[in-house]
Amino acid sequence: MHTDAVQLITIDDVVAAAGRVRGTALRTPLVPAPWSDPDRPLWIKPENLQPIGAFKIRGAVNAVARLSGASGVVAYSSGNHAQAVAYAARAAGLPAVIVVPENTPAVKVEATRAHGAEVVIVPITDREIVAHRIARERDLALIPPFDHPDVIAGQGTLGLEIAEDLPDVELVLVPVSGGGLASGVATAIKARCPAAKVVGVEPELAADATASLRAGELVRWSAADRARTIADGLRAEPSELTFAHLSTLLDDMVTVSEPEIRAAVATLALRSHLVAEPSGATATAAYLFRAADLPRGRTVTVISGGNLAPTQLAEILTGDHPTP
Amino acid sequence: MHTDAVQLITIDDVVAAAGRVRGTALRTPLVPAPWSDPDRPLWIKPENLQPIGAFKIRGAVNAVARLSGASGVVAYSSGNHAQAVAYAARAAGLPAVIVVPENTPAVKVEATRAHGAEVVIVPITDREIVAHRIARERDLALIPPFDHPDVIAGQGTLGLEIAEDLPDVELVLVPVSGGGLASGVATAIKARCPAAKVVGVEPELAADATASLRAGELVRWSAADRARTIADGLRAEPSELTFAHLSTLLDDMVTVSEPEIRAAVATLALRSHLVAEPSGATATAAYLFRAADLPRGRTVTVISGGNLAPTQLAEILTGDHPTP
Repeated sequence: MHTDAVQLITIDDVVAAAGRVRGTALRTPLVPAPWSDPDRPLWIKPENLQPIGAFKIRGAVNAVARLSGASGVVAYSSGNHAQAVAYAARAAGLPAVIVVPENTPAVKVEATRAHGAEVVIVPITDREIVAHRIARERDLALIPPFDHPDVIAGQGTLGLEIAEDLPDVELVLVPVSGGGLASGVATAIKARCPAAKVVGVEPELAADATASLRAGELVRWSAADRARTIADGLRAEPSELTFAHLSTLLDDMVTVSEPEIRAAVATLALRSHLVAEPSGATATAAYLFRAADLPRGRTVTVISGGNLAPTQLAEILTGDHPTP
Repeated sequence: MHTDAVQLITIDDVVAAAGRVRGTALRTPLVPAPWSDPDRPLWIKPENLQPIGAFKIRGAVNAVARLSGASGVVAYSSGNHAQAVAYAARAAGLPAVIVVPENTPAVKVEATRAHGAEVVIVPITDREIVAHRIARERDLALIPPFDHPDVIAGQGTLGLEIAEDLPDVELVLVPVSGGGLASGVATAIKARCPAAKVVGVEPELAADATASLRAGELVRWSAADRARTIADGLRAEPSELTFAHLSTLLDDMVTVSEPEIRAAVATLALRSHLVAEPSGATATAAYLFRAADLPRGRTVTVISGGNLAPTQLAEILTGDHPTP
């Protein structure tokens, strides 16, 4: 068993993290969706409303708050984690260096700089090495995007809020990429609402975590394969640490197709008035299109983020979609 | 003075309404906007997240809860008020009849029926007469969209929430159409945060309330003039009752152009991940483009609603906009 080798985080870690993220991360509400199936009433956890537009702020704030003696932080990311660490460091009064690959859109580089971070642009294959070198040379703490107990505990704080707001929740659907979000949320839900099921959701085109859970061990998909999905936030793969959490805590995993993800983006925008990026809409796609594979009852879907280009959102809004 | 003739609602009316709307209307959070000017930090009150996609649910729920002995309710509206009354009546276990003009989009008629209401379709000039006749013949209570103390007190509950969540708020920007929302919100803010300014916002093309406040008496614009704005929820005109509130409580009014309203819709979608209809984005347009006319300091803009067509949202997302 992989789970023998690593220590899982506990509900106490998540509760402690909740105290640290308060005031910096937004306490998001559960938004009821009156358009949902009355047999499976849906509430949406809108993490796209966080200051950086994604749940990643929670793990970053908790990890930064747990540092002692570091003179600053460094992270490598082209996505929401970059802005999360920049935002969390500024909130804590620490300098931040973010290492980004050279193909990162200028708008994301600017957004990261706007949060006060120094941005170092490197060839994509060098970013991990450069980040570690900067950490060593400048005595900065490296904040990983998911493979760390403090990051997982921080993400778990949104699960704690779900349990507080809807104690009789029966099903929580959460997207899986590196697995930090699902690990933290499942820790909180299983501790506070033991009767509730927690199901992970992946795009069919990046379903390596689903394959791993079926196989009982980490199954690796190539980066090229994982890059095929429109859900660009779900292209990472679990670590030993997150896989140990997922295999212990998740009740199941389901996958959704690319057209189903697009349909969920449109549904969330038009019926719940929330802008979700494709990754952020994936759990709601499972709600809409995998009813036959899921338990009935009070359901929560986590919208993990809302950062997408205006042209992509416009194209999805005016496109044809499958109907649930 | 117009205010001599009518009785204004009080903060006690709003507090009582808050108890009635709890559990049916969503307790919306204040969403911080880290992209805002640090000298004028912005929080957004996202009433587009309400079950029917607009603040109107608050007034409808309060008015329905205040009925005694009515065997049901009737309303006339082609907009968010229709769905609000239908939703509130179902929540209270009462039948609802909604009278809509024959040019109402089929999607809005279906949405109203989906909330369990009977929909009566009539020529636009007949809707008020038909609604009153149905009320009389079937012993139903007519719920007006804004010209009623219970409706105004219900809308005021969102002002109470702003005061609870940001007690040191310095400026609240609220859209003005019939004036029920602004009347209720100003009642709550002026009672709880007396140092805060409350400023109403109208489209330049439907600025009849602004003209009325400048003149010190109700100034009427033709329906054809008011219909020119893209902000289709802001085409109504104040009543004697709401004008008395606005002229007593508002600190000022400002107007915004049509391109500025579109720019605010795009900004809210892309930077705060909230879908606002043009009417709903009008207060945020004032924040973005009327800084010179507004006090500095901690600002809240109310997003009144989020119901718009996908093609309209797509066109705004991909269009050119003025920059603040």
